[in-house]
Amino acid sequence: MSIPRLMLTAALLGLSPAAFAQGQPPREVPARSLPVPGDVSPQVQRLIAAPLRTGWNTPPTTPEGWRQLAETGAAATRQALPGLKDRLKVDVEPGEMGGVKVFRVTPKEIRPENRNRLLIHIHGGCYVLNPGEAGLPEAIFMAGFGGYRVISVDYRMPPEAYFPAALDDVLAVWKAALRDNDPKRMAVFGSSAGGALTLEMVLRAKAEGLPLPAAIAPGTPMSDVTGVGDSFQTNALVDNVLVAVDGFCHAATQFYAKGHDLKDPLLSPIHGDVTGFPPTILTTGTRDLLLSNTVRMHRKLRNAGVEAALQVFEGQSHAHYYRDDTAPESREAFSEIAGFFDKHLAK
Amino acid sequence: MSIPRLMLTAALLGLSPAAFAQGQPPREVPARSLPVPGDVSPQVQRLIAAPLRTGWNTPPTTPEGWRQLAETGAAATRQALPGLKDRLKVDVEPGEMGGVKVFRVTPKEIRPENRNRLLIHIHGGCYVLNPGEAGLPEAIFMAGFGGYRVISVDYRMPPEAYFPAALDDVLAVWKAALRDNDPKRMAVFGSSAGGALTLEMVLRAKAEGLPLPAAIAPGTPMSDVTGVGDSFQTNALVDNVLVAVDGFCHAATQFYAKGHDLKDPLLSPIHGDVTGFPPTILTTGTRDLLLSNTVRMHRKLRNAGVEAALQVFEGQSHAHYYRDDTAPESREAFSEIAGFFDKHLAK
Repeated sequence: MSIPRLMLTAALLGLSPAAFAQGQPPREVPARSLPVPGDVSPQVQRLIAAPLRTGWNTPPTTPEGWRQLAETGAAATRQALPGLKDRLKVDVEPGEMGGVKVFRVTPKEIRPENRNRLLIHIHGGCYVLNPGEAGLPEAIFMAGFGGYRVISVDYRMPPEAYFPAALDDVLAVWKAALRDNDPKRMAVFGSSAGGALTLEMVLRAKAEGLPLPAAIAPGTPMSDVTGVGDSFQTNALVDNVLVAVDGFCHAATQFYAKGHDLKDPLLSPIHGDVTGFPPTILTTGTRDLLLSNTVRMHRKLRNAGVEAALQVFEGQSHAHYYRDDTAPESREAFSEIAGFFDKHLAK
Repeated sequence: MSIPRLMLTAALLGLSPAAFAQGQPPREVPARSLPVPGDVSPQVQRLIAAPLRTGWNTPPTTPEGWRQLAETGAAATRQALPGLKDRLKVDVEPGEMGGVKVFRVTPKEIRPENRNRLLIHIHGGCYVLNPGEAGLPEAIFMAGFGGYRVISVDYRMPPEAYFPAALDDVLAVWKAALRDNDPKRMAVFGSSAGGALTLEMVLRAKAEGLPLPAAIAPGTPMSDVTGVGDSFQTNALVDNVLVAVDGFCHAATQFYAKGHDLKDPLLSPIHGDVTGFPPTILTTGTRDLLLSNTVRMHRKLRNAGVEAALQVFEGQSHAHYYRDDTAPESREAFSEIAGFFDKHLAK
């Protein structure tokens, strides 16, 4: 892919012209062969060595196509769940909160200081993928590595329901959770679209005058889906998960948005007013296509006076930190988030 | 530059074979034209748009050549100093501490809470560049934006003196500072080689049983000069300051090391024992060749239980955050560091 093509497709896709400075010369970078770094665990080396995601640039073009793509991915993830639950000593029970499907993800041993605490998890998948149990791996990592009770929201997705249905469902679960739980003892987390929904949920809760969670952990959030962010260029074809700005994830987001303005803070929370946000920890990797989406959100929070921490993992592409529960870096990432929550949640 | 050439030169340069995983396929990335991002200030856009540093891959080969290169750069920096001091309302006086040349960099208005506090600054320049006043810009940014008194160490450099002369000088200044100042009221900071020297200074002070500073701020530290770090590959020819792992900066470091093992923690502090380190804030940019050097150091500190914060600036190459005092991102970076020091230093 050459950037001229990218800039052309940017126009075709409706990506923001604000993505690029006008009248400034680009940097010409020759073709390169990037070796797998040796300074990460063998598990992360294998994640980095994996080829680009199959079909990254051939997204479905029909609702049924999207449903099939989601189901194919979900079937693969479901196969991995028994082993994952077993290794991380976590139980999963389906349930419902506020009329929304959820899963209760409970460690066999809840840490004593977490007995009265509750985390809400919002899964990723570009607003379209990971239905049902397929949304659970990150919740299981958090429950297992952090020793917290987790509610994972199985929000509605296209083609069943479009923007802002996912966010409506998250808010419904939050309101239901508030009935039985002190918000000072609750945190919200999720990655990718789940990271964006975590930020959008706080924006919406603020607007509705609802109590906010005591802390949040948006991982590599899709905080700007208008194409703005330098790592959309620098990490294009370097990140093997999202691969490029004009790939399947942007197509999925457009499918969810259904014509709604992508600049809306409830789709691109980088444009929201983050004043008064709870303490926030953000996670990304050096090869992440959303490295810029993550660090820009971190700077925005800091500039608004919000306590915000950033962790960046060597060599990792988008959301690699919850791909392999045996990688020491995965335990590290979730232990860091768990520690941040422990610092900011009441007991 | 193709990576096969890089890997060849890595062997020639004595870079660590541990830099790369064995037997894992590399990622093939086609040639690209990276536009200047539109989501940074016009000042930072200009920094990003600048061409690759002149002579990045043609380092001097004689001591006299290095001296001339350092002097040419220093002459240019000296020209900019009067304006910089004026805009940031800072006075500079030469002096001496512990037998080492220093500059006292003092804001015309010291913030009241900083009256009894002192910062020690260690300039960058690959251990060879920025002699005399040329090492001052970062100290002036800190004094001006942070309202702190700063001592900037004009440590000896090759061809006058080699490893570990620079570190010896920093330690001599630290010991002298301890005579009149409470270490709980002092912090140490610097970028690039100055970031490495900040970390090396703490390693040495620990080893000698000296009191440690209350906080440190190593910016984009040369924490691993053995060639290990994925961003040496991913940001090669993307970073327009250091440009590539086998460029002038590595040659300068070898000139300083004079045959000493580059894996020594006093040259590659990533290999040191950071247990008990003071609270640390690290700064880098998404295009920084030392992005990995910085985030790996952050993770190492966190894994050792050290309070450590990370800030990453959109689109910036190596140490761009102290290139233009009129860029809002510069004020932001130094205000963040100043706030971190304020939190951790006694009054």
